[in-house]
Amino acid sequence: MRSYISDLKDKVGQKITLKGWVYQTRSSGKVKFLELRDGTGIVPCILFKGECTDAALESFEKLTQETSVQVLGSVRKHPKHENVYEIGVETLEVLAPSENYPISPKDHGTDFLMENRHLWIRSKRQHAILRVRHEIISAIRDFFDGRGFTLTDAPIFTPSACEGTSNLFETKYFDEKMYLSQSGQLYMEATAAALGKVYCFGPTFRAEKSKTRRHLIEFWMVEPEVAFNDMYDNMDLAEQFVEYIVQRTLKNRTEELKVLERDLSKLEVIKGPFPRLHYKEAAEMIKKENPEFNIGDDFGAPDETIVSSKYDKPVFVHHYPQAIKAFYMKEDPNEPGYAMGCDLLATEGYGEIIGGGQREESIAKLLEKIKEHKLNEKDFQWYLDVRRFGSFPHSGFGLGIERTVAWICGLPHVRETIPFPRLYGRSYP
Amino acid sequence: MRSYISDLKDKVGQKITLKGWVYQTRSSGKVKFLELRDGTGIVPCILFKGECTDAALESFEKLTQETSVQVLGSVRKHPKHENVYEIGVETLEVLAPSENYPISPKDHGTDFLMENRHLWIRSKRQHAILRVRHEIISAIRDFFDGRGFTLTDAPIFTPSACEGTSNLFETKYFDEKMYLSQSGQLYMEATAAALGKVYCFGPTFRAEKSKTRRHLIEFWMVEPEVAFNDMYDNMDLAEQFVEYIVQRTLKNRTEELKVLERDLSKLEVIKGPFPRLHYKEAAEMIKKENPEFNIGDDFGAPDETIVSSKYDKPVFVHHYPQAIKAFYMKEDPNEPGYAMGCDLLATEGYGEIIGGGQREESIAKLLEKIKEHKLNEKDFQWYLDVRRFGSFPHSGFGLGIERTVAWICGLPHVRETIPFPRLYGRSYP
Repeated sequence: MRSYISDLKDKVGQKITLKGWVYQTRSSGKVKFLELRDGTGIVPCILFKGECTDAALESFEKLTQETSVQVLGSVRKHPKHENVYEIGVETLEVLAPSENYPISPKDHGTDFLMENRHLWIRSKRQHAILRVRHEIISAIRDFFDGRGFTLTDAPIFTPSACEGTSNLFETKYFDEKMYLSQSGQLYMEATAAALGKVYCFGPTFRAEKSKTRRHLIEFWMVEPEVAFNDMYDNMDLAEQFVEYIVQRTLKNRTEELKVLERDLSKLEVIKGPFPRLHYKEAAEMIKKENPEFNIGDDFGAPDETIVSSKYDKPVFVHHYPQAIKAFYMKEDPNEPGYAMGCDLLATEGYGEIIGGGQREESIAKLLEKIKEHKLNEKDFQWYLDVRRFGSFPHSGFGLGIERTVAWICGLPHVRETIPFPRLYGRSYP
Repeated sequence: MRSYISDLKDKVGQKITLKGWVYQTRSSGKVKFLELRDGTGIVPCILFKGECTDAALESFEKLTQETSVQVLGSVRKHPKHENVYEIGVETLEVLAPSENYPISPKDHGTDFLMENRHLWIRSKRQHAILRVRHEIISAIRDFFDGRGFTLTDAPIFTPSACEGTSNLFETKYFDEKMYLSQSGQLYMEATAAALGKVYCFGPTFRAEKSKTRRHLIEFWMVEPEVAFNDMYDNMDLAEQFVEYIVQRTLKNRTEELKVLERDLSKLEVIKGPFPRLHYKEAAEMIKKENPEFNIGDDFGAPDETIVSSKYDKPVFVHHYPQAIKAFYMKEDPNEPGYAMGCDLLATEGYGEIIGGGQREESIAKLLEKIKEHKLNEKDFQWYLDVRRFGSFPHSGFGLGIERTVAWICGLPHVRETIPFPRLYGRSYP
C-alpha cells in the first residue's frame, strides 16, 4: 500500500512506499539526498550506502528534476525540527525519466512560464496559490450553505445581452445566436423569488481587449441574491462574508501564505465593521489627489487605490450616480440620481472585489430603464416576470474569485490565481 | 427583524414577521387560511376575525397566487402534528400584486412549463429537486475535500478539439478559434502531476442535436484524477464516492425525496461493493436479449438497461474494446484490444453516470493513438509533456451531475435537474 507525504506524522517508525517526483537532489560525501514530492507535500529521502540497496544508489545517479520514482523506506522524525519527517531509503526505483525539464530553479520570464503553465504548476509557489484558491472556494460555499442559501447555478449560454454586446463572447447555438454569461445575477433574481436566499458560482466571461493585472477573460464569480434584503443588509452580508473567507484562509492555510511571503498582519485586521462611504465622500477624496477626476464619473483603478489606501480594512462605496450604473440598479427614492449600488474595495490597492446593490423592483421603472439603455424589451420578458408576479425588494452582489485570491495571497497579477488562465493574447495550454 | 419559516421551531410563542409569497388561500367560515412560502419553507397562516386586524382581513381578499406579503403574528405548534407550526396572524400587508400568475395547480404541458421555467421553480416539486441537487453538489465537494484532493478547475475555453469537433461549440476568441470544453480531463492529468489527487467541477458543453431524456447541451460534471491509481483503484474510488453521495442525500434530504415520491428502498441498498463486469460478460448479456447488438459495439441506452436491470446496485463495466474508446485510454497489456476504461451504470435504467478509466502513460503509444485518431499532434504538446517529464500511471472519471440528480430523485427526464436547462431547441429563459 502506498502512503502519502501528508500522512507521515502517523507513520513514524513504519516502513512505507511513496510514489512521486524528484524535486531536487544533492550529495554530501556518502549521503545522498532526494527531495521527493507527491502532490501532498515534499519530504527528504536519505540514502546511505549500506542502509539502502546498491541498486538504489545507482538509480539515484539517474535522477533528474521531475523523474517519477518509487521509494521504500522508514519514516523518521527529523533530528532537530518539530513536525518534520524524513525517509531512510531502502530501495529506490525510477518509474519514468524526465529529460531536459524546462523549468529550473533559476528565474524564467513570465511568457515562458505561462507557455509552460502545465509544468509551472508543479512548483512550491504555485501549489501554495492553488491550495489557497481551493480554501477560498470551500469557504465561500460553506459560508452560504451554513446560512440557508440554496445553490442555483445560472446557465453559461444566455440568449440576451443584458448590458450590451461589446464585451460578450458570441457563439452559435445551433441556428441561434447566443452569448457566454457575464454574470448570473438576473437568473439569481428569479431563483431568489423561488428559494429566498440563493447563490450561483461558476465561470463567467468578458471579451475585453485589455491587458491589466486585474483582468482575466474567463474568471469565476460567486453571486448571492437575497429576497427582501435592502442595500444595507447587503453590505452587512458582504462584510460578514469577506471577514469569514479571509479569517478562515488565514487559519487553515497559514503555511501556504508563508510560502508566498504574505504579510499576515494585513489579513489579521480584515474584520467587520468595514468603513462605508457615500460616492460623494469617496469622489471628494479622489478629487483631492487626482485633479483630473470628474465628480460623477466611475472610478479608475488608481482612483480606487486613493480611497482604499486610507484604510487598513476593505471599504464600501455606495450610492453611485445612477448614470454610471447598470439598468437594473434601484434608484434611491430619497436621493434621486443615485443608485443603491455598493461596491467593496480591497485593501492594499487590490481594487474592487465585490460589486452589488439593491435591484429595481418596480416593473414600470425597469421598463423605463430598459428603454433608456436602448435594450431590447423582448429579451427581458422572463426577468420582468419576477416583478409582475409578487415583486419584492432584493439585493445581491458578485465577488470575483481571482481578484480575491490575488489579494489574499498578495500577488501582483491575477494570472497566477487560476490553474489555466485565459487572458487577452493567452489561450494555451 | 424578519424571521424565516425554516427557523419557526425555535420561535414558538414569539411574535414574528415573515415576508414571502402566497402559495394558496382558502376560507372556511370565519377562518381564513393563507399558505405562505418564503423560500425556506411553507407555513399555514391563520386569520380569525377579532384576532387579526380588519385591514388584514381586507388584504386577505386581495391575495392571489404569488402575491408578495408581509405577515405579523405568533408562532404556534400545530394542534395535532409533531414538528409542524402555524402562524396566528395579527397583521397582513400586501407588498406587491400577482395578476394572472400563469402556473396554477392544474396540469400544464412540459413546453409551457419550460418556457416559464423562471416561475416553475417556485413550485414545491422544483424546490425539492433543486435542494437535492445542491445536496449532491455539496456531498461531491466534501467527499473529495475530505480525502486530500485539490480543486483545480479546468478552463472552459479550450484551444484544441480533443475528440473531434463534431460535438463542440466553437467561438471566436478575439482572432483565434476556440471551443467550449467538453471535459476537463486532459487538464486534470496535468494537475494530477502537480498535486497528486485533483478534481475539477464545472459546466461542460456538448453540441448534440438530439432530444433524449438523458442529454443536456450544458451540464455540470465533476472529474477527479489520481496519480498512480490504476483502473481497479479507480473503481474503488468511484464506488465509495457514489455510495457516499447517495447515502448522504438520503439522510439529509429525506423530506425532499418524499415530496418527489421517490422509492427510498431503492436508494438504501446503494452501498459498495458494486458488481464489476468485463465488457465481454456484459456484451453476452445484451446479445441474449437484443439480437441486433454486435459484440464489439458500444452500448446504446436500451443495452445499458439490459445490463443494469439485473442488479439492484450500480454496475461497473470495464475493459471496453479499444476501438470504441478515446485515444487517451490505456490498452491493457495483458489483454490487447481492450481498454482499461470503466463506466458505471446506475440502477433502474438511468444509464451511464460515470465514465472513466486508466490513461495511457507511454508517450510512444499516445503518439500512435493520436495519429490513428487523425488528431493534430501539435495541439497536444502540453498534454504530451505530462508523459515527457516523469510519466506515471493515472486514472480518473467523470460523473454527470444532472443524470445523477435524475437518478437519485427518480425523475424521468434530466430537464428538471438544473435551474435553467439548455437543450436542443431550448435556450430560454
